[in-house]
Amino acid sequence: MQEKSEETLFHHELPAQLRWSDVDQFGHVNNNVYFSLYDMCKTRYFIDVAGEDIFQRITIVVANINANFIAPIYYPDEIVIQTTMERIGRKSFTLLQRAINARTREVKCECRTIMVCYDREQGCTILMPDDVRQKIAEFEGREFG
Amino acid sequence: MQEKSEETLFHHELPAQLRWSDVDQFGHVNNNVYFSLYDMCKTRYFIDVAGEDIFQRITIVVANINANFIAPIYYPDEIVIQTTMERIGRKSFTLLQRAINARTREVKCECRTIMVCYDREQGCTILMPDDVRQKIAEFEGREFG
Amino acid sequence: MQEKSEETLFHHELPAQLRWSDVDQFGHVNNNVYFSLYDMCKTRYFIDVAGEDIFQRITIVVANINANFIAPIYYPDEIVIQTTMERIGRKSFTLLQRAINARTREVKCECRTIMVCYDREQGCTILMPDDVRQKIAEFEGREFG
Amino acid sequence: MQEKSEETLFHHELPAQLRWSDVDQFGHVNNNVYFSLYDMCKTRYFIDVAGEDIFQRITIVVANINANFIAPIYYPDEIVIQTTMERIGRKSFTLLQRAINARTREVKCECRTIMVCYDREQGCTILMPDDVRQKIAEFEGREFG
Repeated sequence: MQEKSEETLFHHELPAQLRWSDVDQFGHVNNNVYFSLYDMCKTRYFIDVAGEDIFQRITIVVANINANFIAPIYYPDEIVIQTTMERIGRKSFTLLQRAINARTREVKCECRTIMVCYDREQGCTILMPDDVRQKIAEFEGREFG
Repeated sequence: MQEKSEETLFHHELPAQLRWSDVDQFGHVNNNVYFSLYDMCKTRYFIDVAGEDIFQRITIVVANINANFIAPIYYPDEIVIQTTMERIGRKSFTLLQRAINARTREVKCECRTIMVCYDREQGCTILMPDDVRQKIAEFEGREFG
Repeated sequence: MQEKSEETLFHHELPAQLRWSDVDQFGHVNNNVYFSLYDMCKTRYFIDVAGEDIFQRITIVVANINANFIAPIYYPDEIVIQTTMERIGRKSFTLLQRAINARTREVKCECRTIMVCYDREQGCTILMPDDVRQKIAEFEGREFG
Repeated sequence: MQEKSEETLFHHELPAQLRWSDVDQFGHVNNNVYFSLYDMCKTRYFIDVAGEDIFQRITIVVANINANFIAPIYYPDEIVIQTTMERIGRKSFTLLQRAINARTREVKCECRTIMVCYDREQGCTILMPDDVRQKIAEFEGREFG
């Protein structure tokens, strides 16, 4: 798995508001809450980058989630979720996300999500539309092979 | 508010499965989790009593929730949710629900929910359909004035 | 139940960040999510008003929740939670909270929570400490009988 | 990644109760809910296999989660979570879990979780205690190299 350690590679950041109900018996934010936060920021990423109507146009389905839990998040840490497109392949693409401490910038968790575009009416996966790919390339400032 | 203390008044019971993520820093099940459990059992109540297609036929909207928290629920207590129709009025009806310990039958929480039937297409509240009212009366073994 | 309709009575407001996972099949924010948001803002209220160490000093337990659901919240509505102390009695006190649309100021939900101070070691309810009561009175700009 | 396709390899199964609040706008169970269900069953696995006091004895920390989402779960599908120990290494071990349809046995999601034993007082990872390893080997009916 290739590393992407440089902070500046993430052009999309969103503060994540923690809730009291996110915390477990040890004062840690529950692991499964991270995925709610990542989801929230995936949704924002696509809306911010590809437009408000993106989810009317295409359905995006998660195929695989792979998360490294590096350090615990305590309540009420201030957390920022970073999101970037790491890869756009022929049939799928990979978002890389991190949960970091807003002040110290310590990386708490790193997560890769493999997703596919899906056509609900036809019931099959489809290619990412060219204009969406183009907008993502512009936002990220690089081409996706 | 009238009391309904006799156990036998509840004809609908469902065990509620607690999750590790339901627990807060004090080892208590979070208050807001109770409402997820009550919701789950409201849905089951209407399906069990009024038929599988009830939510295709009518939309039921919550107008008021009033819950007394009597004793904490600890993980992994075995909890049962009891549900009964307490009142069917002209414009609204009231479900009474309790969270009780499955073994000791101790009442942990008691909750009344005032609901209305709603017509999504017309965008207005409607009367509860007569056959639904009838099925509820049969299930509960009493008439609703 | 007395009404408290004037906007200016709320001196504590916190934007609530909605998550994709908060939304149900109808595109509504789930009723039970409101209680997570209210909880989050109760915690902030006491920390902001009575000091960072308030929850090391006392335990606050919820005795009753009474919520009026006035209008649905849709994703991604911008929501603000307002919190004020409505009453401090001898044995309990009541927080009044509202979920409002951040832009239109429309009230979506209004919730009263009756709470008691609790001594975990002695296992009994206690009076609210005088200095906490005083800080709340100062924050709210009025005396509590 | 080695495959473990034979049904009989899973000796630990637990029905997972779905809640109305688990469902998203498309009628799917939210991806992040799966992780709550897996967590619930991890906890049960260790209690069932290694004893009621296991979490008083050791702390188990998640290092990595890797989940394949194979088919959506709809409400109110009946879901069973299967759990097995796949690997016990020197410093970490891997649980394999699946969410399957209770009736059709269709695999909805497959998830590997890499965990480590942790000593809270010393603040460092520790080896899995021999007796725990032994109990797991007995339960799974095989040795872990």
